[in-house]
Amino acid sequence: MLFLKVKLFDLDIGVNAVVINEEDLKGTPYYPQDRVLVETPAGSFVGVLHSTKTLVNKGEIGIFREITKEIPIKDGDEAIIRHAETPLSVAYIRKKMDGQTLKPEEIHTIIDEMVTGKLSNIENTAFVTSLYINGMDMKEIEEMTRRMAETGDMIDWDESLVVDVHSIGGVPGNKTALLVVPIVAAAGLTIPKTSSRAITSAAGTADVVEVLTRVDLSLDEIKQVVTTTNGCMVWGGAIDLAPADDITINIERPLSIDPEPLLLSSVMAKKIAAGIKYLVIDIPTGEGAKVKTIDEAASLARKFIELGGRVNVHIECAITYGGQPIGRAIGPALEAREALIALENYKEAPSSLIEKAVSLAGVLLEIGGVAPPKKGKDVAEEILTSGKALEKMHEIITAQGGEPKSSDEIEIGEYKAEIIAPIDGYVTQISNKLITKVAKEAGAPKDKKAGVLLNVKIGNEVEKGDLLYTIYSSSEERLNSAVKLARRTYPIKVEGMLLKRISKF
Amino acid sequence: MLFLKVKLFDLDIGVNAVVINEEDLKGTPYYPQDRVLVETPAGSFVGVLHSTKTLVNKGEIGIFREITKEIPIKDGDEAIIRHAETPLSVAYIRKKMDGQTLKPEEIHTIIDEMVTGKLSNIENTAFVTSLYINGMDMKEIEEMTRRMAETGDMIDWDESLVVDVHSIGGVPGNKTALLVVPIVAAAGLTIPKTSSRAITSAAGTADVVEVLTRVDLSLDEIKQVVTTTNGCMVWGGAIDLAPADDITINIERPLSIDPEPLLLSSVMAKKIAAGIKYLVIDIPTGEGAKVKTIDEAASLARKFIELGGRVNVHIECAITYGGQPIGRAIGPALEAREALIALENYKEAPSSLIEKAVSLAGVLLEIGGVAPPKKGKDVAEEILTSGKALEKMHEIITAQGGEPKSSDEIEIGEYKAEIIAPIDGYVTQISNKLITKVAKEAGAPKDKKAGVLLNVKIGNEVEKGDLLYTIYSSSEERLNSAVKLARRTYPIKVEGMLLKRISKF
Repeated sequence: MLFLKVKLFDLDIGVNAVVINEEDLKGTPYYPQDRVLVETPAGSFVGVLHSTKTLVNKGEIGIFREITKEIPIKDGDEAIIRHAETPLSVAYIRKKMDGQTLKPEEIHTIIDEMVTGKLSNIENTAFVTSLYINGMDMKEIEEMTRRMAETGDMIDWDESLVVDVHSIGGVPGNKTALLVVPIVAAAGLTIPKTSSRAITSAAGTADVVEVLTRVDLSLDEIKQVVTTTNGCMVWGGAIDLAPADDITINIERPLSIDPEPLLLSSVMAKKIAAGIKYLVIDIPTGEGAKVKTIDEAASLARKFIELGGRVNVHIECAITYGGQPIGRAIGPALEAREALIALENYKEAPSSLIEKAVSLAGVLLEIGGVAPPKKGKDVAEEILTSGKALEKMHEIITAQGGEPKSSDEIEIGEYKAEIIAPIDGYVTQISNKLITKVAKEAGAPKDKKAGVLLNVKIGNEVEKGDLLYTIYSSSEERLNSAVKLARRTYPIKVEGMLLKRISKF
Repeated sequence: MLFLKVKLFDLDIGVNAVVINEEDLKGTPYYPQDRVLVETPAGSFVGVLHSTKTLVNKGEIGIFREITKEIPIKDGDEAIIRHAETPLSVAYIRKKMDGQTLKPEEIHTIIDEMVTGKLSNIENTAFVTSLYINGMDMKEIEEMTRRMAETGDMIDWDESLVVDVHSIGGVPGNKTALLVVPIVAAAGLTIPKTSSRAITSAAGTADVVEVLTRVDLSLDEIKQVVTTTNGCMVWGGAIDLAPADDITINIERPLSIDPEPLLLSSVMAKKIAAGIKYLVIDIPTGEGAKVKTIDEAASLARKFIELGGRVNVHIECAITYGGQPIGRAIGPALEAREALIALENYKEAPSSLIEKAVSLAGVLLEIGGVAPPKKGKDVAEEILTSGKALEKMHEIITAQGGEPKSSDEIEIGEYKAEIIAPIDGYVTQISNKLITKVAKEAGAPKDKKAGVLLNVKIGNEVEKGDLLYTIYSSSEERLNSAVKLARRTYPIKVEGMLLKRISKF
């Protein structure tokens, strides 16, 4: 056991690292890379030990900012260091690596230890990777979902008609929620929309909304906003909804994977925690989307519906066309602008965006009983075209702490490059993956003003030299890098109509 | 691009982290968790960006000690920060996660990027986990092996009869190399033994040898020692032999896994790099060993022999009994002492250790032509019992910078606890895994004086209250923890002879 004084470091190192002077470690049973239990008056946590000659003095323990989010440790606190045992989860993760089915209590232990920071990045990654490869059965997914929800905040609403829409993603430019939420809220239903930042995409809904208003609202603030406006559009990561998800997302992102058990459980856990009772799940389907075929989409829909039944959330799934980007804008600011254009004057917005938004909103209006059966889409359209949705959007933006702007006030990256058609022909393909890569290379989603604005969609006829799309960035360096990538990979394919010529003899 | 001054941190954080003041990052395209290329006069590396308010000042970049092992960056050096592209390996790792076969150049890229620190822990872990689950074919393993060898130092020996023995491990107490090396070196063959520290065991050969002498020799020092004595027993990690292995081992260890493609390639890459031409591979087999059955052992042996043929190393495999610990001592100091006892007076050493050591040494003596066919074991035994092996051991210890001690001078942990038989009966099982866990809980391998000393082996008859084994530790806390574990898990099973009684009616 060691007795040390806390020295807090302001460093976002992303691990439960603790730092002790080499001299203090001499002759102790504590060695670098060991797990140690750190007990302070503010609480205890398991850290990974690192040694230093200079960063902290003898008698001090260095603790990184990260941990203080959960445990309010202060400079100068007394800390007691003990040996921590190997987490039980390691054996259970091995079981999953070996292709076995996990018991409920084993899943609970993994989620609990993950959320309390007892697992290292290595252990978490091994778990996520083995879920990607070996999967889980529905009982395992149900257990994981419930535990993910229970290990964070749970919101209770007085209303029973709490609805939400969730897209499983995979299609660039999907700013649909920015239309659905104000339409549905304007119709009088409660829609407390929490969304994530980009996982593998160039812009998550939270990234897009953040261009217009604050998204990092506290639980109390969210309740306040929803009570006033019926809706909200906030970043789920700012509150403690199903926090295991934040950990697994950080592993999925660099690997560009989204294992089905985590896809199902992370959506449902967040919705359970957010108190959602009726949920429409949008499954974009098509070449280059997360889901390739209608059969696959139907299979995933059935799994969502089965999982919903097990955890008491009424689910409808909408299989939507995801073979090319939704609308024309990809990247936070570009998408926010396009959504505003749609709310301001729907005739100027891409029809794919309008069509998708009113369809999804329509389903919710029917479920909520504020539109007659089969009339949901018409009612949604009326709310959009009448300007009520824009008014509601401004209300929500204001309630969340922002100041409503018009679409032409949204700033876009100052550096831009135009990509033109290399030949006469037709647009035969717009690759979701490659367009996303280009937008990300330009800096999206972190550079909010970066992205891609399409000038064409699949099927359009173009002449050599016509503009295909514009890349935007706040950084000349990133823009060049994105252009290089675009030139190498051809995200948009233009081909002559005569794809193959067969000669007679 | 950013221009900053280096501030070195003396902290063993284990990642290529770089730290920049928040102020410097504002308005740049660089965000926390981004990969950035850091160019300094001393060389470049890809780091993971972290932001800080206080740890470094504006204009400074914090770089951790770790990286200076490879790039001699100094305090105050100018550093230029650029955006680094996503490593190509990520797509190839995904291919392996999807169960596909990797092309040679894809494997080369993964190994190259791993060794040059371009991959994060997450990516490395995903690779290791997917190798554990999805495996590799022999062509992939060959490519990985060659590349692992080429990406580090390669030793060339003037002699052509360079031999070595390697145990794939998994059996506690396997200090055989400490007998084989001096026997074979005393017979005039060249045996430059490099070994690793414990991966999942309570003591690797390097941990055990380190009790007796220095093991972190440089390449030049190793050549010097081998030229003088014909042999050495050094830690491979101190030189740059197949450095990818050090990275994968750090992932395998916390997960307690050893995927076959990495098992095969890491052994062979290190041997190729060490210039070994003839290799005996010891495959301990039995309940609780890494390899459970003779069939499995034979299959692994064939793979080693096939891989050896592909990379020009002559291999013989020895399938040995691994169903219980070798000898009686488990833990660095306890094992070093037992090996010395065997060299000093083989009659006082456990026969399982002597038998195994002279058998393996015998094969090498025959291959090397210093013993007639089928007489290798006899010659090895003669070298051991005559004291020539002990003399050679002292030579090697001295040459490596140590001072020869007698077995009774080896210090063992001051805290000890005795575990006794709970009933009269026979020892029916000694669990390799559980005994290892107890030794590790007591502090081994990092606490060199910690471990377990068996007083019984399988088949021994014991009376209630007889000593089964003693646990040693340098720490009372760790000892208590180990005793608790031992009491809970029963690593040694004692049962009455009457295992089942069937009554007549």
